[in-house]
Parts: sequence; structure tokens; C-alpha cells
Amino acid sequence: MKKESTKIGFIGTGVMGNPMASHILKEGYELYVYNRTSAKTQSLVASGAHACDSPGSVAEMCDIIFAIVGFPKDVETVFLGSNGIVEKAKPGSIIVDMTTSTPDLAKKIASVAIKKGLHSLDAPVSGGDVGAKSGMLSIMVGGKKEIFNRVLPLFELMGSNVVYQGSAGSGQHTKMANQIGIASSMLAMCESLTYAKAAGLDQKTVLKSISSGAAGSWSLTNLAPRILRDDYEPGFFVRHFIKDMQIAIDSSEAMGIPIPGLKVAKAKFDQIADQGLDNKGTQAVIKAYE
Amino acid sequence: MKKESTKIGFIGTGVMGNPMASHILKEGYELYVYNRTSAKTQSLVASGAHACDSPGSVAEMCDIIFAIVGFPKDVETVFLGSNGIVEKAKPGSIIVDMTTSTPDLAKKIASVAIKKGLHSLDAPVSGGDVGAKSGMLSIMVGGKKEIFNRVLPLFELMGSNVVYQGSAGSGQHTKMANQIGIASSMLAMCESLTYAKAAGLDQKTVLKSISSGAAGSWSLTNLAPRILRDDYEPGFFVRHFIKDMQIAIDSSEAMGIPIPGLKVAKAKFDQIADQGLDNKGTQAVIKAYE
Repeated sequence: MKKESTKIGFIGTGVMGNPMASHILKEGYELYVYNRTSAKTQSLVASGAHACDSPGSVAEMCDIIFAIVGFPKDVETVFLGSNGIVEKAKPGSIIVDMTTSTPDLAKKIASVAIKKGLHSLDAPVSGGDVGAKSGMLSIMVGGKKEIFNRVLPLFELMGSNVVYQGSAGSGQHTKMANQIGIASSMLAMCESLTYAKAAGLDQKTVLKSISSGAAGSWSLTNLAPRILRDDYEPGFFVRHFIKDMQIAIDSSEAMGIPIPGLKVAKAKFDQIADQGLDNKGTQAVIKAYE
Repeated sequence: MKKESTKIGFIGTGVMGNPMASHILKEGYELYVYNRTSAKTQSLVASGAHACDSPGSVAEMCDIIFAIVGFPKDVETVFLGSNGIVEKAKPGSIIVDMTTSTPDLAKKIASVAIKKGLHSLDAPVSGGDVGAKSGMLSIMVGGKKEIFNRVLPLFELMGSNVVYQGSAGSGQHTKMANQIGIASSMLAMCESLTYAKAAGLDQKTVLKSISSGAAGSWSLTNLAPRILRDDYEPGFFVRHFIKDMQIAIDSSEAMGIPIPGLKVAKAKFDQIADQGLDNKGTQAVIKAYE
């Protein structure tokens, strides 16, 4: 892929998309950007990116178009809506959704795209704004293997753990497996901390005993210390995690598999959202235990 | 503490106790041992330990007496029963229960011991037979701090993460916080793997994407690969983990704290125990999802 002749589009330049797009720009690619709130493209434009006024006007200029937006309905609008990516992209272009969205929508975009002579990938990420800034995201990719191979050099600018997972929708399914893993791990952390406190133990000293052993988890290492210093800033927003868990529940129920831990976790997060904590970080779920 | 003049007792020389006692023996202490099945003391006796015919006959010879047995009822027998440790130990001796048992029993032993002029510690461990062999256990200790300090050089022969947690019962409470953490982490692992399989993904490839990120846990790193190769050997026995979860549930309910994740996990483990898998490793809980 020649940087000089490959035009890259990036739609959604918020807390995740902005640093992700900046890695592509820094590498020397010609970059076209769009964001619903146009102010969020300014830093990229100041560094040489071209601002566009719609997803479609990005798409018609570019060879490879990435998007990372909010909810599945936003994905649908950006990709399949009027003046959207699929309508305007040139035949042969590659379109890549990096939003965490539904496996079914990823399959739908893939099937619509192929009829228009486009190639699509679903490539959701994990690693948060910290991973986006450092180019250390985990990127889970579904779609055709040869298309994955063509985009891989760009994925590697954004992520340090880029894994091809299978056909269209497999990236989203993998992300759901990831979110399901997070959900009950957070129950584990909350119940462990709650027990320790109720038993009159010093929670920080308990973490010394348990964090590095069989109870150890990313949550216990990274989120429990934030809870102990009453830091509920996001990290990862409660409202986004609730969205992800709902997709995972719907998808699990459609497949007929049991997810009792996930359901308990979702109920605990719903409880803190009802308390007005949906713009806090996911560690705020401890409040459902107080 | 002079090795030449300090006599150490060790009661319960099974899969955990045997290697733990061997570290003490190798360091040059005079060691007295007892096990219900006497054959399990043979390797220690061959290395210079003295075999005794009851917990009480160990206790009357020793200055510091450790025990690691099976269930709380065994702890009660060994410490508080006829010809047991408390009945026979010399005033001033230190008695240490390293079994995972109930916080209430730890407090009871402490209060009975003090009336007999004995000092007690509760010091359950985690890290399994591998940690016991390598002297890399996590040891969580409750009791008086000055007694902890006196036993610390011996704990450090058996463990690499020895932490004083507070008054009598605090070691057991910390172990419960640990087991609660494990319980829902195992739900997370099972539901994540089950989802991946149902979605038609390659589970091993999914682990590449998710093990090192926010869904990461000791279980996902250490137990999920065993599940993928159909290896259900213990590790940590299902029946022992069920015992621990029951203690944690009883203790949580006595304190009036919510533990919905723990209860779901316990139900899943009960289900596989009913299927006859109680002598398998805890990773066999995936069978409750098949």
C-alpha cells in the first residue's frame, strides 16, 4: 500500500477516533475526516487532515474508510443512511466499522457492501482512550482474510494486538466475548471488596494478598485501586458498557446460551444508571453494593 | 528464633502440607509430624522428621504447631478435640491453622487458646500444590501482630506473599474475599468461552484477543487453555471450592451483604458436582454450560 496514493477516511473523531486517526496521519497518509460535532476534527485538520461535511463526502474521496461512532443506530446512519458511506464509496473501496456494535449489523453492512462492489470489515477495539493514544489497542477483526491483510498495516498503527477472527461479524462477536468476560469480572471485584469491607478488613491490604493470585484480574489490578481512592472518572463509560452488555445479552439469547453472570452484572449496572451514574466510569458499579 | 532450639509441629501432610513442611525441615528445624493417613508422613520422616501418633502428641513436643487439614470439622477435631492441639500444647506455644476454614472457628480457637495460655493465628493460603512446592504461596494471616512477627520467618519459607491482615479471623476473611473473587471470575471465563463457541469463533484465537485486556484474569490465562485441551485434572478440586464458597455465602449472609455473582457461581459448581465431577479441577465448571 503506497502512502502517497492511498487516501484514508476517518469518521468519528471523538475520544477514541481522534487519536486513532492521528496515528494514520502521522504515518504520512492523506486523511479525510468527518465528525458530527465538527470541532472534534480541528486538531486533525490543524495537522493536515481534510475536513468533510458528511460521511458520504469522506467516502467518495477515499480508498479505505474507517468509522468509530457511538451506538448501533449511529453505525447504521453513517454506513447505510442517505449520503452515507455505502451510498457514496467508490467500487473497490474498503469500509471498516470499528464501533462496538451488533454482529447482525456487521453482517448486514457486509452483505449490502458486497452488492455495491465494496469490501467491509468489522473491527471493534478494546483498550480505551489510553490504548487509542498509545497505539496499543486490541483490534478484533471480522471479514474476508485478504481484505484484513490489506488493511493490516493501518490497523498496526492503531493497535498492538490485531487479530483476525473470521468472517463478517466475527470481530463484533469477539468483542462481545470480551465484554462478557469484563462483566462478571467486575462482579468478582465488587463482591470481593464489599466482603472485605463488611468483614472489617483493610481493603488495600486485602488487595495485596489477592491481586496477584487466582482471584487476580485486570479489573482488580486497575479498577479496584480507583474505587479505594473514590475515583469514579471514566475510563470506560457506564452507559457504553450497558449498551455492550445489552447487545451481548440479545446475541446470547438469540443463540440460546446461558449467561447468568452477565445478567446479574447488567442488572447491577442498570441500578447505578438509575442512580444517575451513567456518565461515570464502570468502576462506579461498586455503588450498587453500598 | 533459633533453629536448634525451636521445635516445629506440622499436622496434615497431604498435597499441600507435605511440601510446606518440607521447606521447614530443609531449613534445619526439628520437625514433628502427624497425618491421619500415616503413609503421607513417610517422605518427611525419611528426611529426618519425627512421626507422632496424634495431633496432641505433636503439640506437646513443639513450640509452634501448624495444621492444614480438610474441612472445618477436621480443624475443630485437630485443634479442639480430645488429644488435640489445644489440650496438649505447652503454655506459650503458638498454634497456626493454615486450612481454609470459617472466620468464626478461627475466632473460637483464638479465644479458647488464650485461656490456655496459647497464642493462635489463622493463616490460610492460596497458590495450590504448585505454590506449596515452590514456596511461593500467598499466606493471609489473622491474629496478634507480635505473634505474626514471631512466625514470619517460617511463613516466609512457605510463601512469597505473606500479608498480615488483622485480628483473629482476618486471615480466613481475606481468603473468603479471594474465593469470592475467583467465583465470578470463573463465570466470566465460562460465559465468554461459551459465547465464542456458540458464535462459531475459534476459542483459542478469541483468547489471543481478550486475555491480555480488560477481560483478562488469572482464570482466563491459566484455566481457559486447560478447558480448550479438555484437561479437567485438579489443580484445585471442585469439592474444596464448593466448601469455600459455602463458607463465603454463610459469612456474607451473616453480615447481610449482597453476593449475587457468588450465588450464581455456587449453583453452577453444585450442578457439576451433581454430575459427579466433584473430584475434577475447578475448570470443569464449563460443563455446567454445555
